[in-house]
Amino acid sequence: MENGDVPENANEQCPGTLAESAGKADACQGCPNQEACATAPKGPDPDLVAIAERMATVKHKILVLSGKGGVGKSTFSAQLSFALAALDFQVGLLDIDICGPSIPKMLGLEGQEIHQSNLGWSPVYVESNLGVMSIGFMLPNPDEAVIWRGPRKNGLIKQFLKDVYWGELDVLVVDAPPGTSDEHISIVQCLQATGLDGAIIVTTPQQVSLIDVRKEVSFCKKVGVPVLGVVENMSGLAQPLSDFRFSKITETGEQNDVTEWALQYMRDKAPELLNLIALSEVFDSSGGGAAKMCREMEVPFLGKVPLDPQLCRASEEGRSCFVDQRCTASAPALKSIIEKLLQNQALSQMTVAVENGA
Amino acid sequence: MENGDVPENANEQCPGTLAESAGKADACQGCPNQEACATAPKGPDPDLVAIAERMATVKHKILVLSGKGGVGKSTFSAQLSFALAALDFQVGLLDIDICGPSIPKMLGLEGQEIHQSNLGWSPVYVESNLGVMSIGFMLPNPDEAVIWRGPRKNGLIKQFLKDVYWGELDVLVVDAPPGTSDEHISIVQCLQATGLDGAIIVTTPQQVSLIDVRKEVSFCKKVGVPVLGVVENMSGLAQPLSDFRFSKITETGEQNDVTEWALQYMRDKAPELLNLIALSEVFDSSGGGAAKMCREMEVPFLGKVPLDPQLCRASEEGRSCFVDQRCTASAPALKSIIEKLLQNQALSQMTVAVENGA
Repeated sequence: MENGDVPENANEQCPGTLAESAGKADACQGCPNQEACATAPKGPDPDLVAIAERMATVKHKILVLSGKGGVGKSTFSAQLSFALAALDFQVGLLDIDICGPSIPKMLGLEGQEIHQSNLGWSPVYVESNLGVMSIGFMLPNPDEAVIWRGPRKNGLIKQFLKDVYWGELDVLVVDAPPGTSDEHISIVQCLQATGLDGAIIVTTPQQVSLIDVRKEVSFCKKVGVPVLGVVENMSGLAQPLSDFRFSKITETGEQNDVTEWALQYMRDKAPELLNLIALSEVFDSSGGGAAKMCREMEVPFLGKVPLDPQLCRASEEGRSCFVDQRCTASAPALKSIIEKLLQNQALSQMTVAVENGA
Repeated sequence: MENGDVPENANEQCPGTLAESAGKADACQGCPNQEACATAPKGPDPDLVAIAERMATVKHKILVLSGKGGVGKSTFSAQLSFALAALDFQVGLLDIDICGPSIPKMLGLEGQEIHQSNLGWSPVYVESNLGVMSIGFMLPNPDEAVIWRGPRKNGLIKQFLKDVYWGELDVLVVDAPPGTSDEHISIVQCLQATGLDGAIIVTTPQQVSLIDVRKEVSFCKKVGVPVLGVVENMSGLAQPLSDFRFSKITETGEQNDVTEWALQYMRDKAPELLNLIALSEVFDSSGGGAAKMCREMEVPFLGKVPLDPQLCRASEEGRSCFVDQRCTASAPALKSIIEKLLQNQALSQMTVAVENGA
């Protein structure tokens, strides 16, 4: 990706948006992108040396991406980190969602602050083997918007990579914002030379979400980042019928809560219903969902995680979903996805380590 | 917002990140943000004149924002546009989510292309009074990632505002990507002088989502955009009981699909159940949800829309949820939100128009 992409409306001899001559070459004269290209950051970067030094103690680096937001990417990053730490790996979790950092809350670390030592910025630790870094730890007021354009976001991402003292890590999980823009280009440019194992892409089953995932896969292919696999999240809701509430729409269009009555009516007239589980395909997956897309795009499909209100709750409370029995619908699915992930060749050293440790 | 914000680590006399002297003033010497500020676009912009001319025929401009992605912002923008068009307004819908455009699919316009005339770029029309513009219409291959840094995204947004020939519009709805970065700063800078009525912020009830909405409200306050109101989306799943599938767990722990049997059993024994709507709180709203946040932040709360699989389907298929009776759980909620929105003083001219027309 050294030379970036070539805009559709570019001049014939476009050197590529990331080439050192971008916007300044003779071929750029009169191109509509000239100014944007000339001012964009590009070319070899002295910070890359500092980043490579920092990353020398980090064995594996995994990006967690999504095309669309709100598909549960940060929830997945958080639970992946909890799971890897529970396997006794030394884990770092880096949140590069600058404008909407969710990671501090999802790891139960809200209100924590970063400390600085002569070794660099110290991550905030959940456990001794799970350290976390996020802009969320640096905001004096959590309600305050971070109104930053690209260059400043890129600057902070670089600082995270250069200045955070992670120590020896088995794996660094990087949680990215949705899309394929500044944060994504920067993290790949900064980490590629240090050995980036690959990316996990999180999606939901609907077509609208899958359209964006295809773009994310195309991004990975373009910039040379292996796709470790795709996770389909929120694959349908499953819940005992007796756990629902019920309402009735009146003739004037209002909704009345009739839960008490409905449950009594079932007990009286149709008691067998109370033992049933009601299933709803919340998001339309009639297009074949992520599994079909993975076959078409030739990337690994890691599995489905159902929409589990208990998993949502665990995320809200910053808890691992693996430590108690509450996330019955989602924890086993997540566990099998993580096992499948660890079988990937790029990460097979880690698996060996687990086996030896066991 | 002429001078942008002042970074926390800025020098004492910081002129603001958007000031013309940003990065170049004496006070900027040695500031860690100097380079980023010096290269960022800023200052008075000749394009603003062209934009003002184009926007002279657009009566109202509404931004649709969200802190987090995947909260149904584009679904809301799409259905808002359908609803306003059904009220006989002349409506434009502009999608400024450059890396993940969902609007073409949600309006049923996938695969359409933009045509150019001597008046400018023509929007793609759903109906004669509903025109749509999105980068989605400009991509030769929908799977291809748009790997663009900020300046190029900003360039395209400006082009949309300068070069699209909307004609006379009652309202332009602008669907923004999640966050508070390039796209948001640019659209506000470009539209503010032309009269921006305000922003609608879409969220889901969980705390993780609300944290980001607070940032979005803070963004609006900082840049001087009125918050027209907050919509809480995916407020629990609501679906006619007869639309669920049902399963039974056998003694050996397997799940058997018993949907046919269960529906027949209801028809025979408890037919009144078939008219009920079943509700489940999918996302934890124990923190009080968006309504509480709105009270705290003193912004209007517009209402809740349930998570309705039929609405998801309508979005997937690019249909209005108002034209048939399928979206029983969500359409009335959306309708009442839009009515509430039209009562806003900024938009009250529009309401008058409806009343006169009726």
